[in-house]
Amino acid sequence: MKLTLVGAGPGDPDLITVKGIRALQQADVVMYDALVHPDLLDYCHPDALKVYVGKRRGAYSCVQEDINPLIVHYAQQYGHVVRLKGGDSFVFGRGYEEIEFARQCGIETNMIPGISSSYAVPASAGVPLTTRGLSESFWVVTGTTKAGQLSKDLQLAAQSSATVVVLMGMHKLAEIMAVFANCGKAQTPVAIIQNGTLPDQQMVFGRVSDIVQKTEESGVGNPAIIVIGEVAGLPSGQTTAVSEAISQHLAQQK
Amino acid sequence: MKLTLVGAGPGDPDLITVKGIRALQQADVVMYDALVHPDLLDYCHPDALKVYVGKRRGAYSCVQEDINPLIVHYAQQYGHVVRLKGGDSFVFGRGYEEIEFARQCGIETNMIPGISSSYAVPASAGVPLTTRGLSESFWVVTGTTKAGQLSKDLQLAAQSSATVVVLMGMHKLAEIMAVFANCGKAQTPVAIIQNGTLPDQQMVFGRVSDIVQKTEESGVGNPAIIVIGEVAGLPSGQTTAVSEAISQHLAQQK
Repeated sequence: MKLTLVGAGPGDPDLITVKGIRALQQADVVMYDALVHPDLLDYCHPDALKVYVGKRRGAYSCVQEDINPLIVHYAQQYGHVVRLKGGDSFVFGRGYEEIEFARQCGIETNMIPGISSSYAVPASAGVPLTTRGLSESFWVVTGTTKAGQLSKDLQLAAQSSATVVVLMGMHKLAEIMAVFANCGKAQTPVAIIQNGTLPDQQMVFGRVSDIVQKTEESGVGNPAIIVIGEVAGLPSGQTTAVSEAISQHLAQQK
Repeated sequence: MKLTLVGAGPGDPDLITVKGIRALQQADVVMYDALVHPDLLDYCHPDALKVYVGKRRGAYSCVQEDINPLIVHYAQQYGHVVRLKGGDSFVFGRGYEEIEFARQCGIETNMIPGISSSYAVPASAGVPLTTRGLSESFWVVTGTTKAGQLSKDLQLAAQSSATVVVLMGMHKLAEIMAVFANCGKAQTPVAIIQNGTLPDQQMVFGRVSDIVQKTEESGVGNPAIIVIGEVAGLPSGQTTAVSEAISQHLAQQK
């Protein structure tokens, strides 16, 4: 009896790790989420049982409290369960609860990290979360807490000099922007990226003061990631510090 | 002429992505850092030029200002340069500077994300950066700023409820712990992980008040990652909230 959590990465199926593929090949059962790319299931053994436990798409859905005992059930019945989750299982993935539940039921557990959307999706839009001289830290916050309210951490994050990344926050975009505007950051660049790393990736660039309107006009929606900070202005040319420094350096060499 | 940044991941060579491997196979030149696992170079074409540009190990070392023009030189001379960097290139990797420099020299650029050590190394020690009810955000800070001082963000991070991850901070461990102790966090759990995801991984668990002494006694040193927050106490049993909730849940079902 064994449970292996595997992070599927942010979207592009080629962003899974070699180690993740090996686990998929050895699985007796693969339990996968809505955000997992269907091509990844091709790595499974033909006889492996594939179980969809996604939380979206309407038709069928599981809550976390159902998934935990289901993992244990499949491990006891079939042997090796791979739990394939979008992004990374320990970054807002509730993976630790699954690991701990299985462990208490006497199941061996293992965790293989995945590329987290928190930085890979911004990168696919040309936004580095840190860059010398612009940002020396980043803070990843969820827009959706257990209680359904805005995380209190967001209030603090808005006061900091960190690049702030908000996951699962699109339904509260206006509220989040108001928090930053109230901290004197109306002019801070914002980037919003939908379906990051996939062929249908869409992006909107703006500032705290105008991003809500720009997003509405563009039609960009869930699943999307919000990045707030000077680095978010690099791809659109709103932030020019890095390119200017390099231009000057190159000019001096000529 | 092309530059592709490839993130090599946190240490374990099997934590590279499929996409990263493909880029290595197609490279004419691979420029790699000290923290890159040597096995990854086996993916390169036999005729590919392999150039070490690491910043450690003494013998030979490059500063960033030397690497940027070197990338351009190799791209102009040989065609496709892959820049293979530990972790992820856009998370404290100075990758954006390399991309921007190359772009201004007329070179096509591309970026393939890697598994960042910031969350994968804690995970390999059993520490999830977020867990429902314990931590709803995480903040990644560097211990070494451009000016050589402690990042000002650390002062704010210590006041927040985020899990705080400090990269490149071991040489200032006592100073960092003093910041947290001054914010009333002497009892907050801390985990320090050296060589995360590799066979010689070493870990120390403690609290803000005693981790400096425990680290000295254990001999754990660089390259290591510091995690501060309730989640850091999960593997050692200092933090028991999750396991107790699951115990109760399981007991009720019997």
